[in-house]
Amino acid sequence: MAKKALILVADGTEEMEFTITYDTLVRAGVECTSANVHNGGSPYGSVGTSPALVVCSRGVKILPDTTLQPLEAGPDRYDALVIPGGLKGAEALSQSTEVQTLVRQYHEGGKIVALICTLAAKTAGLGHQPVTSHPVIQNELTTLYDYREDTVVVSNEVPGKGTLVTSLWSTGTVFPFAFKLVELLCGKAKSDEIRGPMMFPPGVPYP
Amino acid sequence: MAKKALILVADGTEEMEFTITYDTLVRAGVECTSANVHNGGSPYGSVGTSPALVVCSRGVKILPDTTLQPLEAGPDRYDALVIPGGLKGAEALSQSTEVQTLVRQYHEGGKIVALICTLAAKTAGLGHQPVTSHPVIQNELTTLYDYREDTVVVSNEVPGKGTLVTSLWSTGTVFPFAFKLVELLCGKAKSDEIRGPMMFPPGVPYP
Repeated sequence: MAKKALILVADGTEEMEFTITYDTLVRAGVECTSANVHNGGSPYGSVGTSPALVVCSRGVKILPDTTLQPLEAGPDRYDALVIPGGLKGAEALSQSTEVQTLVRQYHEGGKIVALICTLAAKTAGLGHQPVTSHPVIQNELTTLYDYREDTVVVSNEVPGKGTLVTSLWSTGTVFPFAFKLVELLCGKAKSDEIRGPMMFPPGVPYP
Repeated sequence: MAKKALILVADGTEEMEFTITYDTLVRAGVECTSANVHNGGSPYGSVGTSPALVVCSRGVKILPDTTLQPLEAGPDRYDALVIPGGLKGAEALSQSTEVQTLVRQYHEGGKIVALICTLAAKTAGLGHQPVTSHPVIQNELTTLYDYREDTVVVSNEVPGKGTLVTSLWSTGTVFPFAFKLVELLCGKAKSDEIRGPMMFPPGVPYP
C-alpha cells in the first residue's frame, strides 16, 4: 500500500521547501496531501469549499489540496507529518496549537515527524533527542536538545516514540531532507531510483 | 531599476523548476511575473478575472500572477523570458505559436531567453549556437546546434542577438540555472550574496 504524507502549509511557507519535498515524495510514489493550517487567512480567501490559497515567502501562490481538519489528520491516516520552513510560515505553523497537538500525536504514535521548521519540535514539547536547525534558532534548541550541525539529522532515540527528522532549515538542504524522507518511507533503493533521473551535477553530495 | 523576468507556465510544468527559479530570482530583487500560457485549460478554470490555476507535473497547484497577454509580454517589458520544463508543460509551451513568437522577439531584441525546456529554442527557430538539454531530446538538437553536456550553457554567439541560457533540463540543475540567471541580470556579487543564506551543503558545486 502506498505510503502517505501530510504536508502542512501557511502563508509565508518557503515555496521551494514545500515544492521540493512534495514533488520528490510524489516521484517516490508517496501519496501527498498538502493542508492549509489557516482557512481564509490569505487575501485570496477560499472559493466555495476549496481551501484558501497560500501566499508563500517569495510570492508564489499555491492552492493546497485541503484545509487542515485536525480530526482527519492524525497518525492513523498518514505515515509522516511534514512541516516546511519559511520565516512567517514557520512561525505560524510552530505557534498553532492544532499543529503542536498533531506533532505530539505523530511522535507518540510511532510515525515520522519531518521538520524543516525545527522550532515545531520545541513548541510541541518533544523530548530531548538529536536535532539540527537553521543557525538562526540554534540558541533556542541547544539546552533542550542534543544539537548537531549535520545536513539532515534522523532521531530514533526516544524509546517507544516515532522518528524525528530535522534539517538545517535552509533551502540548500531540502533535497537531502526529501531523499532521507523517501528512504525512511520507501527504502534506500527507491530513493536511489528517483534520484537518478533528477540528474544532479557530479559532486553533489546528496545521499 | 529592478530587473524584470517573465516566467511562462502551463499545466504539466515541473513545479520544482518553476518554483526554484522564481524564488531565487525574487531573492535577488528581480521582479518576477508568472504567466499562464493557457486560459482556463485546467479543470479548476479561472475565477473572475484571475488567471487559471496550473496543475503541475507532480500535482502541486499554482496560481500564476497573470494570464499571458502576448502584446504586453514583449522584450520592451521584461529583461528575461524564462521557460521551465516538465514533460507535458514543456510540450505545451514549446508548441505554442505565441510562445515561439515571444522567444524570437526576446532573442532578436537582445534580451535573455532562459530555457530549462530547450526544445523551445528549436520550435522558435533560434539559430545555430551552443546549447544543452535533457538527454531525452538531445537527438533533436545535435544537428541544429552546437550541443554541449555542461550543467548550464550560456550562449552569446549569434551577433546582434540576445543571450540564450539552457540547462540540462532536469531538476538537479535548476539551482545552478537560477544562479546563472541572477548573475546575468544582477551581477556575480548579487548571485554570491543570495547563495550564502541558502546554505548548500559543503561540496555542492554551484557557481
